[in-house]
Amino acid sequence: MPIPVETFFLAPDAGGTLQQQIRAMIADGILAGRLRAGDKLPSSRRLADHLGVSRITVTLAYTDLVAGDYLWARGRSGHYVSETAPTRPDVRRLPNAPESAVDWSARIVGDFSGHGIVGRPEDWRSYPYPFIYGQADPALFDHQNWRQCALRALGRRDFDALTEDYYERDDPMLIEYVLRSLLPRRGIAAAPTEVLLTLGAQNALWLATQVLLGPGRQAVTENPCYTGLRSILGQTASNVLAVDVDEEGLPPDAVPAGADVVFVTPSHQSPTNATMPVQRRLALLDRAGRDDFVIVEDDYEFEMSFLRPAAPSLKSLDAEGRVIYVGSFSKSLFPGVRLGYIVAPEAFVREARALRGAVFRHPPGHVQRTVAYFLALGHYDAHLNRLHQAYRRRRVVMNEAIRAAGLTVAGRGDFGGSSFWMAAPEGVDSEDLAQQLKTRGVLIEPGRKFFAPGRDTRNTYRIAYSSIAPGKIPEGIARIAEAIGERADAAR
Amino acid sequence: MPIPVETFFLAPDAGGTLQQQIRAMIADGILAGRLRAGDKLPSSRRLADHLGVSRITVTLAYTDLVAGDYLWARGRSGHYVSETAPTRPDVRRLPNAPESAVDWSARIVGDFSGHGIVGRPEDWRSYPYPFIYGQADPALFDHQNWRQCALRALGRRDFDALTEDYYERDDPMLIEYVLRSLLPRRGIAAAPTEVLLTLGAQNALWLATQVLLGPGRQAVTENPCYTGLRSILGQTASNVLAVDVDEEGLPPDAVPAGADVVFVTPSHQSPTNATMPVQRRLALLDRAGRDDFVIVEDDYEFEMSFLRPAAPSLKSLDAEGRVIYVGSFSKSLFPGVRLGYIVAPEAFVREARALRGAVFRHPPGHVQRTVAYFLALGHYDAHLNRLHQAYRRRRVVMNEAIRAAGLTVAGRGDFGGSSFWMAAPEGVDSEDLAQQLKTRGVLIEPGRKFFAPGRDTRNTYRIAYSSIAPGKIPEGIARIAEAIGERADAAR
Repeated sequence: MPIPVETFFLAPDAGGTLQQQIRAMIADGILAGRLRAGDKLPSSRRLADHLGVSRITVTLAYTDLVAGDYLWARGRSGHYVSETAPTRPDVRRLPNAPESAVDWSARIVGDFSGHGIVGRPEDWRSYPYPFIYGQADPALFDHQNWRQCALRALGRRDFDALTEDYYERDDPMLIEYVLRSLLPRRGIAAAPTEVLLTLGAQNALWLATQVLLGPGRQAVTENPCYTGLRSILGQTASNVLAVDVDEEGLPPDAVPAGADVVFVTPSHQSPTNATMPVQRRLALLDRAGRDDFVIVEDDYEFEMSFLRPAAPSLKSLDAEGRVIYVGSFSKSLFPGVRLGYIVAPEAFVREARALRGAVFRHPPGHVQRTVAYFLALGHYDAHLNRLHQAYRRRRVVMNEAIRAAGLTVAGRGDFGGSSFWMAAPEGVDSEDLAQQLKTRGVLIEPGRKFFAPGRDTRNTYRIAYSSIAPGKIPEGIARIAEAIGERADAAR
Repeated sequence: MPIPVETFFLAPDAGGTLQQQIRAMIADGILAGRLRAGDKLPSSRRLADHLGVSRITVTLAYTDLVAGDYLWARGRSGHYVSETAPTRPDVRRLPNAPESAVDWSARIVGDFSGHGIVGRPEDWRSYPYPFIYGQADPALFDHQNWRQCALRALGRRDFDALTEDYYERDDPMLIEYVLRSLLPRRGIAAAPTEVLLTLGAQNALWLATQVLLGPGRQAVTENPCYTGLRSILGQTASNVLAVDVDEEGLPPDAVPAGADVVFVTPSHQSPTNATMPVQRRLALLDRAGRDDFVIVEDDYEFEMSFLRPAAPSLKSLDAEGRVIYVGSFSKSLFPGVRLGYIVAPEAFVREARALRGAVFRHPPGHVQRTVAYFLALGHYDAHLNRLHQAYRRRRVVMNEAIRAAGLTVAGRGDFGGSSFWMAAPEGVDSEDLAQQLKTRGVLIEPGRKFFAPGRDTRNTYRIAYSSIAPGKIPEGIARIAEAIGERADAAR
């Protein structure tokens, strides 16, 4: 490609003649890999004008570089980086990018990288049996209509929505559809001032922790729980207490006295898939009123209730305005869309909105408008319907394969979802199991990372069916069973 | 539109017969404005199945609602919300959205909404003379190619880039083009591990403050400075000291001893447009080395150097790895794209990346890939060229109009930019001036908000030419001069 003339600067403190400086500047770029074989240099006239030197100086430098095989001259068409130009063997450290003289460990406030998100391998799509959670299956996505909505949102009529810096506001069209179309399905009626768009559920949970938690505050999570939440809470200075869940999710009686904020996943407990019965939801709200704590309800995957209609959200039962509701498009559309929402009392939303404004202003306008069209034109509901049917089929295949292989399901998933919470026999360490299965083309998620340190189970694991083709499921499950069998035998 | 059946729930604690409950549920929705005139109700069979009640119960409830003029029955086609349905006069508080029983002021940690961003009026496009800063002009944008890049990024081949949860990573294609095409223009060579994509410059600055500042740390800003930075720093617990700039930007000697982080805008000082000379840049770096502080360089608008080539960035002169460089696509593309980047030593980037992961994971994949194509296909450079030409023309018109009207330019803008920093005569308060001009169709930005409290000037203001058509400029400037004249007369 042609190299823009703006690429080139003469360092103010460089030594040597101008011709030498120009030569060094170009050679450096080639050695560092910034300028590559076949790239076209600016004409000597353009470069001379840009650098404020005479044209003959540039011409002589180019001639020099041709002699050194850095450049090729091609008749009248100009100078190109040579296909056989010198290279520098190790270019990890580039010129102008020195080792820092700063003691960054003393400079950095807090410990952010110590709470990493445990992800799946980057190349997960290359594994034949990826039972990994939360990624989108291209075969199920409605490309055609999504593209049309995106195009429509890119039209001239939508230029403002696309380009404008909204500061603290959101796309009014998307807010309208969230209020009118999504929230009513969860039994939630809200005013526009009670809704805030976020960059996914992760961002919503983060905003809630920042607004509500700090030194001396008591946070309560489920045990096991969503790993992203634990990493966020690890970055606050609050006390965090994990309460063991049972087959109906978080037991309200187990919430300790003095709790300030309780984080729950009533629709599908993450990761065990337990659904909290309505009576327990009411008991939790009652407890919250008596002990004056606030509840953050992560309603992820409620859209995936394809076995029974989803139970009403905690928020819909919230007579006292104590629930901060978190929803997301990551599971119903795809995670890369990075769009979710908070529904909460106005006093909370006002602060969360101001914090969001300082942190990043707002989710990109084009993404907001595209989702709004996808909802408005009815594609969202049609897409969910297709997902339901596909997941229902896959779940049948999973159930059958699990039964045939004699594996043990540990968690209930009465409403659907996209995964099973499993238990290997005692004595089988699921982290070792996962490592071994990886070499056999199978990806599973070991359970330990979901638990509070020291209060974990070694034998649990999660297998999701949202990214694996149904035809692959039986063989994948059989391989899991085989590996477990070998390990259980060895443990005896 | 058809109302999805999932909209409807029977509250578990509701009183009355099932038929009454169904009736109340629908009437409530209509009164609250969630169900609107012309919306189609689910068939009685569907709703009965969904609620788990008999069909006759739903039919009787519908008949009741028709009698009350909530619904219309239209032969075989079903039931619709009546065009003349009862309404509730004041629907600010909706059912299910009670006033909160929680004392949120005691719950909320810190003060986020107290540092609001001072924006322009939401309806700024309806003013004939909008000299407001930082918004995009639809007439200058390359819609056609942007749409094509967005479409290409939505293709099936790019499905992973579009949909994938990257966790802490970025789109490798965009990183490649930032490293190869953008940074070299600023004289910066960096490795991929030294670059982090952010949601605009605002987000980059925020990440830097979070990683580097806290109680006991000393931050230094320019005075006047970018308002978004002041609002971010107001949310940290660090000391913030503002240093007055002169015609060459921040004077290095004025940085107080004990500074930890110094925030500067060397390319175009925000808002005065001063460009820091290279000698002063070197002196600032020298001072940073001696006093061991870190510099955050906000290189916003460097692309708008159309009068002279941009001076080398501070980062390109940074031999000790002390500079955290912040770039953005907000000015060169449009603010709503919400995309920027940090270039810094790896130790810093690692922490900022982990923090970004916890806060929102990553900027949406589709936006990243679209910008990557826009760069890769050469549209970005062509677009910048067009912007330069248009801004150069507008600047000539501005200069001429300012001269003709006898207004005073307070800040230099030798390299270009998109605005002028102006001074009204002493005694003219630019906030009053702005209010008055607004009633005359003219939007300007009063200068006071840019200054540290108590160290402001009352008579300065900023006028930008990025969003106003050239033909409107002379009349707009004349109106400013007229209003200033009236005020100066009155002040005498």
